[in-house]
Amino acid sequence: MGEVAEKLERFKVPSVDHILGTPFKVLDSGHVRLIDYMGGDESIVQAARVSYGKGTKKVHEDRGLIRYLMRHHHTTPFEMCEIKLHVRVPMDHWRQWIRHRTANVNEYSTRYSEAIDDTAKTAPDKWRLQSGRNKQGSSGYADVENCGKYLTETEAELHRLLRQEYERRLSLGIAKEQARKDLSLSTYTEAYWKVDLHNLLHFLRLRMDEHAQEEIRSYATTIGEEIVRRWVPITWEAFRDYRMDSLSLTRLDIELIRFKDSIPAMMTAARAFGWLERNEEGNLKANREREEFEVKAMRLGLSTPWVTT
Amino acid sequence: MGEVAEKLERFKVPSVDHILGTPFKVLDSGHVRLIDYMGGDESIVQAARVSYGKGTKKVHEDRGLIRYLMRHHHTTPFEMCEIKLHVRVPMDHWRQWIRHRTANVNEYSTRYSEAIDDTAKTAPDKWRLQSGRNKQGSSGYADVENCGKYLTETEAELHRLLRQEYERRLSLGIAKEQARKDLSLSTYTEAYWKVDLHNLLHFLRLRMDEHAQEEIRSYATTIGEEIVRRWVPITWEAFRDYRMDSLSLTRLDIELIRFKDSIPAMMTAARAFGWLERNEEGNLKANREREEFEVKAMRLGLSTPWVTT
Amino acid sequence: MGEVAEKLERFKVPSVDHILGTPFKVLDSGHVRLIDYMGGDESIVQAARVSYGKGTKKVHEDRGLIRYLMRHHHTTPFEMCEIKLHVRVPMDHWRQWIRHRTANVNEYSTRYSEAIDDTAKTAPDKWRLQSGRNKQGSSGYADVENCGKYLTETEAELHRLLRQEYERRLSLGIAKEQARKDLSLSTYTEAYWKVDLHNLLHFLRLRMDEHAQEEIRSYATTIGEEIVRRWVPITWEAFRDYRMDSLSLTRLDIELIRFKDSIPAMMTAARAFGWLERNEEGNLKANREREEFEVKAMRLGLSTPWVTT
Amino acid sequence: MGEVAEKLERFKVPSVDHILGTPFKVLDSGHVRLIDYMGGDESIVQAARVSYGKGTKKVHEDRGLIRYLMRHHHTTPFEMCEIKLHVRVPMDHWRQWIRHRTANVNEYSTRYSEAIDDTAKTAPDKWRLQSGRNKQGSSGYADVENCGKYLTETEAELHRLLRQEYERRLSLGIAKEQARKDLSLSTYTEAYWKVDLHNLLHFLRLRMDEHAQEEIRSYATTIGEEIVRRWVPITWEAFRDYRMDSLSLTRLDIELIRFKDSIPAMMTAARAFGWLERNEEGNLKANREREEFEVKAMRLGLSTPWVTT
Repeated sequence: MGEVAEKLERFKVPSVDHILGTPFKVLDSGHVRLIDYMGGDESIVQAARVSYGKGTKKVHEDRGLIRYLMRHHHTTPFEMCEIKLHVRVPMDHWRQWIRHRTANVNEYSTRYSEAIDDTAKTAPDKWRLQSGRNKQGSSGYADVENCGKYLTETEAELHRLLRQEYERRLSLGIAKEQARKDLSLSTYTEAYWKVDLHNLLHFLRLRMDEHAQEEIRSYATTIGEEIVRRWVPITWEAFRDYRMDSLSLTRLDIELIRFKDSIPAMMTAARAFGWLERNEEGNLKANREREEFEVKAMRLGLSTPWVTT
Repeated sequence: MGEVAEKLERFKVPSVDHILGTPFKVLDSGHVRLIDYMGGDESIVQAARVSYGKGTKKVHEDRGLIRYLMRHHHTTPFEMCEIKLHVRVPMDHWRQWIRHRTANVNEYSTRYSEAIDDTAKTAPDKWRLQSGRNKQGSSGYADVENCGKYLTETEAELHRLLRQEYERRLSLGIAKEQARKDLSLSTYTEAYWKVDLHNLLHFLRLRMDEHAQEEIRSYATTIGEEIVRRWVPITWEAFRDYRMDSLSLTRLDIELIRFKDSIPAMMTAARAFGWLERNEEGNLKANREREEFEVKAMRLGLSTPWVTT
Repeated sequence: MGEVAEKLERFKVPSVDHILGTPFKVLDSGHVRLIDYMGGDESIVQAARVSYGKGTKKVHEDRGLIRYLMRHHHTTPFEMCEIKLHVRVPMDHWRQWIRHRTANVNEYSTRYSEAIDDTAKTAPDKWRLQSGRNKQGSSGYADVENCGKYLTETEAELHRLLRQEYERRLSLGIAKEQARKDLSLSTYTEAYWKVDLHNLLHFLRLRMDEHAQEEIRSYATTIGEEIVRRWVPITWEAFRDYRMDSLSLTRLDIELIRFKDSIPAMMTAARAFGWLERNEEGNLKANREREEFEVKAMRLGLSTPWVTT
Repeated sequence: MGEVAEKLERFKVPSVDHILGTPFKVLDSGHVRLIDYMGGDESIVQAARVSYGKGTKKVHEDRGLIRYLMRHHHTTPFEMCEIKLHVRVPMDHWRQWIRHRTANVNEYSTRYSEAIDDTAKTAPDKWRLQSGRNKQGSSGYADVENCGKYLTETEAELHRLLRQEYERRLSLGIAKEQARKDLSLSTYTEAYWKVDLHNLLHFLRLRMDEHAQEEIRSYATTIGEEIVRRWVPITWEAFRDYRMDSLSLTRLDIELIRFKDSIPAMMTAARAFGWLERNEEGNLKANREREEFEVKAMRLGLSTPWVTT
């Protein structure tokens, strides 16, 4: 590492430079915009190689090295890249967003300035029904004519009332910090959000997941597909292959798969795991871990020998 | 450090044990409760002494050591204490609270459960007026008869409407994660909040400050005076002496104070700092840094030679 | 959550209380000791349930809930437990240890006190040979008679010389902060180390791994098996089942396994992945990703259709 | 904030671009090099203004705003700037360096590669004597002829021996991860270190301090004076004025200063603080807090009424 004295140019990624400042629309009037970035695929490689010293350039080429680092959770080289976004997002989803603690944040202050006069509105065909299976999810949409139109109209009326009261308080001289107390969670806020690539991918892993709430999933998907994919294409591909589209097998799953050629052995093992208890009608009781295995087995093209009903 | 093998009891602080689980009321129906703690004044000393090896016990006695550590910002021994609270707080102030990133949090989920049916209400005599000087502060109260009563009634009506709409959405089968979008920021939430003593004191330093918003200041003061003071009394005293009641002098402040016996020298210096510019009417222009110095000088019993008007 | 006002006792885990303060030996004269803890399996459940509100107690029993949280990476409830250890460890491995940034640390200061007069010595039969395959690993031991005895003797002589020089510097009045500059990395240091359970498990996941260096693996295994297993037995079991003994399949692995009943389809896919390139002698080129798949397939009892040589 | 759609250029700081890649020498063969940066003084302003919404541009001009943010510890806008350095530093000081946990790090791996063949050598006139007053400090230099020359020669011999043994181990096939165990703490390592500006200034505040060890102070000073000063000149000036050259008065200090015109009142207060206890010979006992006050009083041009001896 003696040959360090060469003159450096700042590292640039032309494929992402042309979208700097461009807002990508999310929801009815939210957005994400790339403000600045540091590093890229090449600087991940550069950082990884400081660990390995001279002469490693020949061993791995760049793509192979990045994929190796991702596969083996060598996270520090990904931390060498940083991104800064400007986002406009309803407060409700911003609440979820900033639970990710390893980022830098500057949010629009409603103590200092008037709250943004904009709320996220739900279209008549976008009212989601409570999922029966998943206590924290949704599934399908409410009927537009009987329900959606009505809810959307009522919502518009509520938003109008809330804003009117907010502005009345201000006009009566009430402090902004207190007047805002009855803004609705659907009110838009704005922020600068800066995060390193490792922590960004962790955020995307959780928030692009099918169990994430639809609204924040839209933000995460936009960040991933519109910005990260252009910024660090090799890393993005590895992230898809090894994180988003991967599958984790537990010790129990592995045991069962090893027995895949013997139905009795598989049944014995599943019974020992407590997966095959039956209720009084003789149907299998609900068991989260067994059901998760069934989904994995299906993805792997394996069959499960038990009969659910 | 060879004599380490002695049997340990868990470290206990009897003076705080009797309030474990007791809710201390904040606002109209919020609270903070102590759930558990690790360590205390003595374990700060114990941790500090691992740095100093054997035989230092004689050099400092405990109180002196803790005060020394606090005065000199030796923060790691304070990190050896941990506290876990259960809090009930309006979402609006919880938003401010969790901007402190170095804590562990489990919040009540309104995706999973129905939102808590309780909102922070403002009494007719508690509507604060916007501060003229401080763009993000408040100052004084609105007139009760002409304004406060009316605002409180309207607020109650708004809260009723919002809850009614929330429950209507649920009764129509809308998913909880979406139905909540128009809850108001004054809706109560609950959380477990766990933090180490160093970061807790940092939180209290900022949130007990007179510039903090009144509501979160109430929470911070309750945590400090009701819980921390009982838990780590020596640390609390040092924190008051060296943080809350301290005063920071800038390079410019120091220069001026050195000239305190010569009005001309003081005036020359202040002028060089750009603090004494006058507007067309001949009055001193507003200058934040000069005004802050004036406040400090008053606290120190020093006079400033310039005439403001 | 209205019924919160009951009196609390501090949460205790009797199964771990009897080892408080007991040093568990690691290496030749290192150790780990439990100093204090906050929470346990039950407080993970308690924290998780604040998210779910009333009435969920029936849905999951405790073990099922903890296992569900672990399987689905719901990490915040595990952060509600905290542990404090006293460790004695060679500086070389402490360097690796404190790369884990999410912990609180108080280390013995060699600026303030004389360095601990103890070094980690390698027995004649414990000199490990460089692994040929793994550039950062070891494999097997050097011959005791021809090599190990000699290295151990030379090492003892080196340690003696280094200590002698250190003490000579001190006796000549040289500052401790400078005299220590030629201590060897094998010199023992001591520290208090405090961390939450989630981050501790992450540390153990990485440092109990077979690719971790043997010395730090000994520390991690001792912490896991002697302390964590006693402290949070249900969590420990879930951690073994879902982290230590789990297996992650990539998008590519999944595709291959889906083709397991058709050798030609498997070969075509593997070729498309670039896994089956051959060198001039007709042997398969080294390919990390293919080799990792071979190991996974073996664990799953699946066969791979290609011939390596 | 509706006018966001304009095309952005990446933010550049020409005054620092010309030193990208240039190594600034520290110690005998260490260095720091700027690799990349994100943001600058202007982006601190930009981030601060997102909090304040439109129209604030007129209120503060940039310099005033940055100084205000620094004076009032509004830290988040400074977190919006990020810097990446390449450093070459002895392991001993690197140990101190990475105790700062809020940075990203990729260090040269001596498991993977041969240790760097270079150690920090101390010149005959640079052996520092132990401070009598400050148990963790140094004060003055050892005599060159009687002591320094001898220590430098012995050190060179030690370094030669240690390297020889390291290389012998490698030549006998011992794993690099184990062979390194007797490298001395003075061995150089290298790393990429990436940190945001707020945390960098915190690092510099502690490590440029006169109580920091001389070696790491050299690194910190070089980073500050050669790199940060060029990168964010307005922030650097504010940092000097409000952090490095500031002075903190405790509650006790303030009370005393208020009494500065009355010697009896000052004496009474100091006595109440326990600052004026005398030993059997009638001399004032050592008291850290009083001594610290004496230093502050001197800086402020105030006199203290007590007689030390």
